[in-house]
Amino acid sequence: MSFYQRLNAAWDRSGSMLCVGLDPDVARFPTAMHGSVDAIEEFCKAIVDTTGDLVCAFKPQIAYFAAVGAEKQLENICEYIRAKFPDVVLILDAKRGDIGDTAALYAREAFSRYGADAVTVNPYLGTDSLEPFLATPDKGTIVLCRTSNAGSSEFQSLEVDGEPVYLRVARTAATKWRTIGECALVVGATYPDELARVRAIVGDMPILVPGIGAQGGDINAVVRAGASRPSSSAATPTSPPATRASTAPSTNRGLIINSSRAILYASDGANFATAARDVALATRAAINAAS
Amino acid sequence: MSFYQRLNAAWDRSGSMLCVGLDPDVARFPTAMHGSVDAIEEFCKAIVDTTGDLVCAFKPQIAYFAAVGAEKQLENICEYIRAKFPDVVLILDAKRGDIGDTAALYAREAFSRYGADAVTVNPYLGTDSLEPFLATPDKGTIVLCRTSNAGSSEFQSLEVDGEPVYLRVARTAATKWRTIGECALVVGATYPDELARVRAIVGDMPILVPGIGAQGGDINAVVRAGASRPSSSAATPTSPPATRASTAPSTNRGLIINSSRAILYASDGANFATAARDVALATRAAINAAS
Repeated sequence: MSFYQRLNAAWDRSGSMLCVGLDPDVARFPTAMHGSVDAIEEFCKAIVDTTGDLVCAFKPQIAYFAAVGAEKQLENICEYIRAKFPDVVLILDAKRGDIGDTAALYAREAFSRYGADAVTVNPYLGTDSLEPFLATPDKGTIVLCRTSNAGSSEFQSLEVDGEPVYLRVARTAATKWRTIGECALVVGATYPDELARVRAIVGDMPILVPGIGAQGGDINAVVRAGASRPSSSAATPTSPPATRASTAPSTNRGLIINSSRAILYASDGANFATAARDVALATRAAINAAS
Repeated sequence: MSFYQRLNAAWDRSGSMLCVGLDPDVARFPTAMHGSVDAIEEFCKAIVDTTGDLVCAFKPQIAYFAAVGAEKQLENICEYIRAKFPDVVLILDAKRGDIGDTAALYAREAFSRYGADAVTVNPYLGTDSLEPFLATPDKGTIVLCRTSNAGSSEFQSLEVDGEPVYLRVARTAATKWRTIGECALVVGATYPDELARVRAIVGDMPILVPGIGAQGGDINAVVRAGASRPSSSAATPTSPPATRASTAPSTNRGLIINSSRAILYASDGANFATAARDVALATRAAINAAS
């Protein structure tokens, strides 16, 4: 199955656009784990166990592993997700970006080494830097468009021919990148107006939305602005071919809404995993109520 | 010593603006190494041994290690460089780019785990995403400006208020980022005209130049366009404070000119390391002849 097919199936099966981000910060681990790097695998697997039936995707952030030399633990966690929740989409959040030969190695890192279904990448180097990702069969390439941080407008909102750079990225995704492979975009929950403008351009292309929970993005505004509906899909000339990702019903589709810290660190007690489940349940319910 | 101080000392000591990029591609290893991942450390150390006295910097490209799970070998190679050639600047080529908390982890990866003096980063997310790097005392932050690949103009050359995005990046580096920390830029050797425009903006800020050798950039054009000279430094109002990086003489400064494949794979025989030295010697001589 391709990335788009797997994502559609995951939305269907879980009834959820929630993605749990695996950002294991040892300093915030439950007291019993003693802030230990060795506990990263145990911590993440416990979160996976209690939230896997509530999500369309898991998104490990590789920086948390790379900073402490825990790549082997990340490999084990990815393998665990694939084995225990084979229908959940696995997104490696790496925001890679390099020229051709090197980009091909990063694609190998994400898709082969970690077995991810999709990886986040940076568009600054241009289409040829994205091709090794896009050209990998059945894998997803999730390109940064408008990020959730306070300073994201500095370059992303520079005006070019009357529209901001991030919309140029969205337009390029909808026209060029989609013809090469299975493309998606990142738009932060902290910018719902911008999310609506991107949605109007990209039809029913999936959008990964970080920034709810600890970063303060509003779930209702995100779903209103970003969920994929027939009207928005029909309104754009850049809608993809009917054979691709177009079987989604009118609501509860189109978004991969990420929450990390609010779920992972719901409790620092021995009940951390069940507390994470409670927050994940409430977040999924809030997303579905807004749909 | 700070990154700028170390780089100035390295230019002085080596009489060289050459940087050897460590891109260990096992498929191109000497026949006797059997294309083995286990040989990465041995291969890179041999290259370091025979070229360390000829360079201002080594630049390991982390993707070559990450694709094959060789992070421990990269740690060992970085430690070896610091021990054997303590005056050579160590640049981790990682092109990282993420929001604040995560960027801080990538800074920890580069500066603490691998002990790099500097790391390459991507500007698309804006100044707040660069701050964790720039704010690390004595370390260098080398921001992508105009990359060497054929498609780099797609976003980097979009016109904003009459100038391309990459010059906006250069201007932001010269005015804002330089006040936060020790900033440098990446400009590809394949674009000497653009390199000259960047140099005119950034004064004597160091510029990392990939793209000579296998990528075809012309050494004479690069040095003419990019070397830091008093006239270019004096011509710009954005020149840094006199206490910083301003002790460089008029020529043979300002650039970190990278060559990877042309040096690493000069021979696939048992003489690969001495063949690498021969090419490094010739490349250094060509750079100095152009200065």
